[in-house]
Amino acid sequence: MINPLLIHIEKICSIKINETDLFDSFFEHKIYKKKEFLLIEGQQCFEKFFIIKGCVHLFFLRENGTEQTIDFALENWWASDFNAFSGGGITQFSIRTTENTEVLCISAENQNKLLRQIPEMNLYFHLVFQRAYAASQMRVRYLYEYSKEELYQHFLFDFPEFTQRVPQYLLASFLGFTPEYLSEIRKKYLS
Amino acid sequence: MINPLLIHIEKICSIKINETDLFDSFFEHKIYKKKEFLLIEGQQCFEKFFIIKGCVHLFFLRENGTEQTIDFALENWWASDFNAFSGGGITQFSIRTTENTEVLCISAENQNKLLRQIPEMNLYFHLVFQRAYAASQMRVRYLYEYSKEELYQHFLFDFPEFTQRVPQYLLASFLGFTPEYLSEIRKKYLS
Repeated sequence: MINPLLIHIEKICSIKINETDLFDSFFEHKIYKKKEFLLIEGQQCFEKFFIIKGCVHLFFLRENGTEQTIDFALENWWASDFNAFSGGGITQFSIRTTENTEVLCISAENQNKLLRQIPEMNLYFHLVFQRAYAASQMRVRYLYEYSKEELYQHFLFDFPEFTQRVPQYLLASFLGFTPEYLSEIRKKYLS
Repeated sequence: MINPLLIHIEKICSIKINETDLFDSFFEHKIYKKKEFLLIEGQQCFEKFFIIKGCVHLFFLRENGTEQTIDFALENWWASDFNAFSGGGITQFSIRTTENTEVLCISAENQNKLLRQIPEMNLYFHLVFQRAYAASQMRVRYLYEYSKEELYQHFLFDFPEFTQRVPQYLLASFLGFTPEYLSEIRKKYLS
């Protein structure tokens, strides 16, 4: 069940990891139903998750008790609270599936062992995080540059399938809209 | 002149790079005066910069011609448009010094050679980008969670020296304030 990750590694950095038995011993294959939690805000975070199939959202609880979604992860993305993961600390985010989801999960402890045994994996993680950080630079630019409606247009243009796939109330939360406002501008752009 | 980077590498991932002569051949030591450009929006980006001494800000030009600062980098941070750097593409950001600044600069081509010759450097970059991405997760949370005034309070609390060091009009731009508004709340918190 490790294949999707091996394929992703080869795609990102042209490394063939052949030691699949070894590899298997570091990762755990987990299956979650829709709306199950991978991580709960306020608990310790020891793991990070590679999405094989499905979708998750990352959110935090506002003081008024509403959930604020700040990110999504689909197939071939890694999800975690990386601050907490790297230090074994308390997470400031929850992660929950938005559909039935399969992941490969690795603990910080197992990752350290993996990196010692297969150091080439550092090239993979270097490039994965560089890409994620580059995406976050562009995202911050968009947050400063665009109105809410323009943000939605960009999102629709850059990730058309995704916009259909995630629950609309979560997309509204992510974009900082009320669900009613999102529904209004959806009608405008889809008509 | 490579020492500050070697010290940072040892601090981040406990690796001692002894091959300093080799190392020197990949990096270029550059000195910039205050307000000089390291990178100009719209040009190709082939390099990334390790700040030895000084400070830079990353910004883009709004349609109305004003500069929007979205990030700063001080000593021991890496700065670039990482999307453009990784693909040799056109940068969507400018980088300019806010004080006299010394950097170590490496081209994408030299980085590829470096990683082949000293593959341990991938562990360093893996951890550096993980840290940068983790910081951007928290930053996005703050952008959703806090009012402008609360953002300033957090910034003042988390980075007190920094708040004194960068020009106030750039800090205002970064925080999404007018300079007048920043001056008003500065008076309030510093009195």
